[in-house]
Amino acid sequence: MSKLVPPHGGKGLVCALLEGQALEDEIKKAEGLKKVEISSRAKGDLIMMGIGGFSPLDGFMDKANWKSVCEKMLLTDGTFWPVPVTLDISAEDAAEIKPGQEIALVRNGALLATMKVDEIYEMTEEDKKFECELVFKGQGEDSQKFWDVAPSDHPGVKMVLAQKPFNVAGKVKVVSQGEFPEKFAGTYMTPAQLREQLDARGWKTVAALQLRNPMHRSHEYLAKLAVEVCDGVVIHSLVGNLKPGDIPAEVRIKCINTLVDKYFVKEHVIQAGYPLDMRYAGPREALLHATFRQNYGINRQIIGRDHAGVGDFYGMFEAQEIFDKIPQPADPGKRLLCEPLKIDWTFYCTKCDGMASMRTCPHGKEDRVILSGTKLRKFLSEGQPIPDHFGRNEVLDILREYYSGLTEKVEIKMQHAASGPAE
Amino acid sequence: MSKLVPPHGGKGLVCALLEGQALEDEIKKAEGLKKVEISSRAKGDLIMMGIGGFSPLDGFMDKANWKSVCEKMLLTDGTFWPVPVTLDISAEDAAEIKPGQEIALVRNGALLATMKVDEIYEMTEEDKKFECELVFKGQGEDSQKFWDVAPSDHPGVKMVLAQKPFNVAGKVKVVSQGEFPEKFAGTYMTPAQLREQLDARGWKTVAALQLRNPMHRSHEYLAKLAVEVCDGVVIHSLVGNLKPGDIPAEVRIKCINTLVDKYFVKEHVIQAGYPLDMRYAGPREALLHATFRQNYGINRQIIGRDHAGVGDFYGMFEAQEIFDKIPQPADPGKRLLCEPLKIDWTFYCTKCDGMASMRTCPHGKEDRVILSGTKLRKFLSEGQPIPDHFGRNEVLDILREYYSGLTEKVEIKMQHAASGPAE
Repeated sequence: MSKLVPPHGGKGLVCALLEGQALEDEIKKAEGLKKVEISSRAKGDLIMMGIGGFSPLDGFMDKANWKSVCEKMLLTDGTFWPVPVTLDISAEDAAEIKPGQEIALVRNGALLATMKVDEIYEMTEEDKKFECELVFKGQGEDSQKFWDVAPSDHPGVKMVLAQKPFNVAGKVKVVSQGEFPEKFAGTYMTPAQLREQLDARGWKTVAALQLRNPMHRSHEYLAKLAVEVCDGVVIHSLVGNLKPGDIPAEVRIKCINTLVDKYFVKEHVIQAGYPLDMRYAGPREALLHATFRQNYGINRQIIGRDHAGVGDFYGMFEAQEIFDKIPQPADPGKRLLCEPLKIDWTFYCTKCDGMASMRTCPHGKEDRVILSGTKLRKFLSEGQPIPDHFGRNEVLDILREYYSGLTEKVEIKMQHAASGPAE
Repeated sequence: MSKLVPPHGGKGLVCALLEGQALEDEIKKAEGLKKVEISSRAKGDLIMMGIGGFSPLDGFMDKANWKSVCEKMLLTDGTFWPVPVTLDISAEDAAEIKPGQEIALVRNGALLATMKVDEIYEMTEEDKKFECELVFKGQGEDSQKFWDVAPSDHPGVKMVLAQKPFNVAGKVKVVSQGEFPEKFAGTYMTPAQLREQLDARGWKTVAALQLRNPMHRSHEYLAKLAVEVCDGVVIHSLVGNLKPGDIPAEVRIKCINTLVDKYFVKEHVIQAGYPLDMRYAGPREALLHATFRQNYGINRQIIGRDHAGVGDFYGMFEAQEIFDKIPQPADPGKRLLCEPLKIDWTFYCTKCDGMASMRTCPHGKEDRVILSGTKLRKFLSEGQPIPDHFGRNEVLDILREYYSGLTEKVEIKMQHAASGPAE
């Protein structure tokens, strides 16, 4: 019997993905349906609903759920959920679609799902600002200051503000996982597939390291801390889209494979990938990570410094603190059961003679090897030596090769991405 | 309000130590009572009952409790308790003492407590062997093999076999904490005193590092792992008696003070001492450590390699595994609430470029800095250099000074102590 945490929502894995004859019938039916082109973010969300990663969600949210999630982090049925999962459509599409109608959801023309429409609701500029302020604004941040910079500098806010003026809600039937199973074969896994691997290992206390960057010593240390105190760690990489300048998933996975091969005990680590795009919602996204990881059988989400953050929008440990403030529904099925594994800012310290954190190292700045993302990228692209102990040579070699192949234009974009967040 | 784990047994801190007028009256009364000289081990147990460290025990165990604890790790009222806490007396004393009588318990002539006698029961050789086999024998060990070596090589077994032929049971009133408060001022703490310090820091998840050896890098690593994932760690040193050859508490505490001063962040560490003697009961003693630490407000007991072991009597991780097999009384008050924080065998690895464990380091023996206790003592006493990364220089200097001052006779005894256990 599985010792793993049950999926979120108390209904088991809720998978909208069709199989066999049902799948074929749905694809055929979709030919006659109105086609709606969806965003990259919505594609990731849709596939997660397909494979059970977003259990108990079975479709995009209606207005009541959207509002409840923004304001209270609860679905209207009282289940915890931290971020809106909505699908935007144009005014033209909105005019053509009626509740009760079935539509086909496509990305770059390729069919991903059908939806039985429940509700079409307008998202005014006010509504979008309401969502952005509740989902993307840091606790300590002044509202005025947030709006001065977020529309130009926060990729998540930019994305919401650029959404089309209506949302369409309804239950979905997913017919494809897109390019992920093939492109990331061996890494991309559904919750059921990962649970099977975890069960085969007999794990119970399973930590996840969220990764959207290559693994340096700090990430390795977080993962290894988890290995010391849990049955094992899942290095869980985002394989959907990132902001410009971030390192593509193929390169990251190559780095991780190498690191795992040379520096980890295989019995205690699994590498896996999930198909979402980054929202950069900081604390709220940290909660989303914990929520979908529960579906993957994971019950400890490692939360380090500035988890899922961007720029200076969030306090360094806001993504840790938010776990102490979330609603706790009486029904455990409706509660978030994946707990945070909170780790402080980590680095190599020469006096400590090893990796350490602000909690364990009493020494000074001059003893610590800390490198900003910007500086690292500059050193790598220029082929300059990286300070000792910052990363593993085998990983840095892969990154050097990647950076040396980049064109100057991409290079400049990267500089803008500045000192990136921790995970 | 305190966030700490409640004392074991569901009755708060049960402290047999008298104060004020009651104390003075009891001392006076004791003058007229029959005096019984007790062992060093019993003295430590008595003081723990005095200060609430052995809550809910309020006296030495009667035969029914002794048997139930040996067999089931439960007191007769169903409360978890892992090792017998008994007081042995001679046949002459047994003949003179009657149930209902009050007696005075002295150590080297100094009054420690009075006892209202409930029961006097014989401990035959069979009874002692029964106790030894259940309490001191490792899980995997053959009974015949155990009895071939334990009577000569196991200090805990030797102690039980050498006990006088009767046990006396009854509730105690403690009048003294012996030399501990003065001799280890600043380190020795009662459960109430430690709880006060923990509460003042607002801690909730508190780990304890059991120490009866000086702190080397491995111990430091265990403590720091705990700091990374808990509110903080209590470095909790045994300041009672050890077997010959072990390093005396004063030297150990000097080492720890230096290490804490140079290598720890003060906010996350407390050094404290407790007055027990070692029993060397391995797994059962690990459970005792967790049990009395719960009384000290600690809810995570670090259990490393061969915790509280001696020689080859226990499997390397038997003291971890036993936590999964203990009785779980329905009433949480009667259950052990201090959980194990299980850590694998740790060491410095040159390829890992830092501390690691068997769970996190995939490299070979040749990359790891591992030193047996015997070799370390030899190097230190001969003033030879210690391999890099094994210990902190500031600590090794203190040990060098200590060993250089030892006479040859003590030296030889130490060699016998062989490769000591981990904590």
